[in-house]
Amino acid sequence: MSVRAYAVEQARGPVRAREYEPAPLGPHEVDVAVTHCGVCHTDVGMIDDLHGISRFPVVAGHEAVGVVEALGSAVDRTRLSVGQRVGVGATAGACFACEWCLSGRQHLCPDKDDLVLRGDGGAFATRVRAGDWRYVQPLPDALASEQAAPLMCAGSTVFTALVRHGVRPTDRVAVVGVGGLGHLALQFLAKWGCHVTALSSTATKADDARRFGAHEFVVAGAAGEGLAGLSGAFDFVLSTVSGDLPWDAYLATLRPQGRLSVVGVPESAFTVHPLSLLLGEKTLAGGLVGTPVETGQMLDFAARHGIRAETETYPVSRIEEALDRVRVGRARYRAVLEF
Amino acid sequence: MSVRAYAVEQARGPVRAREYEPAPLGPHEVDVAVTHCGVCHTDVGMIDDLHGISRFPVVAGHEAVGVVEALGSAVDRTRLSVGQRVGVGATAGACFACEWCLSGRQHLCPDKDDLVLRGDGGAFATRVRAGDWRYVQPLPDALASEQAAPLMCAGSTVFTALVRHGVRPTDRVAVVGVGGLGHLALQFLAKWGCHVTALSSTATKADDARRFGAHEFVVAGAAGEGLAGLSGAFDFVLSTVSGDLPWDAYLATLRPQGRLSVVGVPESAFTVHPLSLLLGEKTLAGGLVGTPVETGQMLDFAARHGIRAETETYPVSRIEEALDRVRVGRARYRAVLEF
Repeated sequence: MSVRAYAVEQARGPVRAREYEPAPLGPHEVDVAVTHCGVCHTDVGMIDDLHGISRFPVVAGHEAVGVVEALGSAVDRTRLSVGQRVGVGATAGACFACEWCLSGRQHLCPDKDDLVLRGDGGAFATRVRAGDWRYVQPLPDALASEQAAPLMCAGSTVFTALVRHGVRPTDRVAVVGVGGLGHLALQFLAKWGCHVTALSSTATKADDARRFGAHEFVVAGAAGEGLAGLSGAFDFVLSTVSGDLPWDAYLATLRPQGRLSVVGVPESAFTVHPLSLLLGEKTLAGGLVGTPVETGQMLDFAARHGIRAETETYPVSRIEEALDRVRVGRARYRAVLEF
Repeated sequence: MSVRAYAVEQARGPVRAREYEPAPLGPHEVDVAVTHCGVCHTDVGMIDDLHGISRFPVVAGHEAVGVVEALGSAVDRTRLSVGQRVGVGATAGACFACEWCLSGRQHLCPDKDDLVLRGDGGAFATRVRAGDWRYVQPLPDALASEQAAPLMCAGSTVFTALVRHGVRPTDRVAVVGVGGLGHLALQFLAKWGCHVTALSSTATKADDARRFGAHEFVVAGAAGEGLAGLSGAFDFVLSTVSGDLPWDAYLATLRPQGRLSVVGVPESAFTVHPLSLLLGEKTLAGGLVGTPVETGQMLDFAARHGIRAETETYPVSRIEEALDRVRVGRARYRAVLEF
């Protein structure tokens, strides 16, 4: 059966449907008929060629939920079966043989299969092919498909930061940005048992942030002027925004040995005064999306605690509208396409 | 008995001996008759008021070795006794009651007793008073006093970075700078079992670096041009220099999840491209001097492995000459004053 993919031929160009016949299925590959796909800031970045690395045509999309359509010959049939509801996220395969894979760090595999970097192989399409079945996640029944789709990248990214940095339920934490990633991070951290503060650029999100689980809400201010009262307040701060922040002001909100984990991609270089890190033995660290094990734990945790993305759903016929909502940062809190 | 301290009355001013009568000894305090004291870059920084925080008169010195002269009433006599040879380092006391102290992180105690910040209470003197006996370290016999003195700050700082970052004997590591801290870091890491590379700004230190235990020696170059062949080479990089580095070039030498620990204080802000940290999930972290337990482990490890500072020893009458050697970066590899 041919695939209908929603492609863009040039930066910021219109979306056009393209039909193509897929290649034969490899032994470890899995075809998934997409029912829902989240729209991430990164998708818009690739479509608009914001980073100058896009190869056109671009078919974006890397937060897919759908139904298994076909399994390669080597896929473990006790784990996946045709007709099963599954998720496929930002990474859809790895070599499972290199040092990184063999030590449980598949997200660092140099040959990992990133949907974002495939070019025209993303999940804004009626079918997405996972490079390896071990990256295809069965979904708990408790998670509705449209609310689960954004968990596959945004959810995995923020959840994994908590795991990697050893955040403890006794910690006081802050989330920078109440958006696609941030609104999930608030939920995860609240259910993790932490005292949670939301740091936002806009006062209008206070009620939503509290609904997502924040105990406190603070308008940080462009120069961090709103953070003045939060000196040494947090064990862990998770930045989910893509803008540049006054990093020293955010580092000052950390307690000694506190960690600032950055999972949004700032536009410019970090600028950090040495003493902001040295005196309190603080850490500035980048984070990536989770491994299959971590993403599986995330889905289980989300199902157990009723964590879900808050979504605006668009039929794929309105894909341009959905992309525009994300472009201008208006999605509350994640746009999801329905196929 | 009066104390003779070597004080500076104004920035870069001459050193003059001052005599004073010490206050009565507090219950947890210990007086140590100084026999040797290392000269650290920070001492010169305080004497020259490089950071604008010096309070004159300044009596610098925070790498002391000497003999216990008097013990406060509450000091545990099974641990320390008059006449015993001991070391006193950058930190000479803490409250031992706050959350940080009680969780084994005395180096983060807000009331810790830093010799550097005392003003006129440093160890360039015939006697130094430790604020708390738990910070007074008995010295293994295997460590000669003049070689042990620099271990009390420089040694503790670099050793502690290995402990805090969980460096493993299987790691490939690099030390930036072959100086007072760096020449000790090379020795510790070589005996830790690691593959060790020295990164230096000057080719003339190659033989010394190898003698300290480096398996490889690379001239990094001011813009990091010498690092081109070292992409993804190291699990851990320890920067011991106080100059500004091309941070992105150094971060590029790290393997995924690698950690760049900075224990020298750069002059300017860190400037780091976000993707230098994010793509490989790398960490940039500041480090501080060790706790009493860590410094004790360091001394034990140094004694077991024959690790010692390479020193130039000056009688205190030639203190100006010693300070000048450190000012111009000519000490090989640590100047030590003898009292």
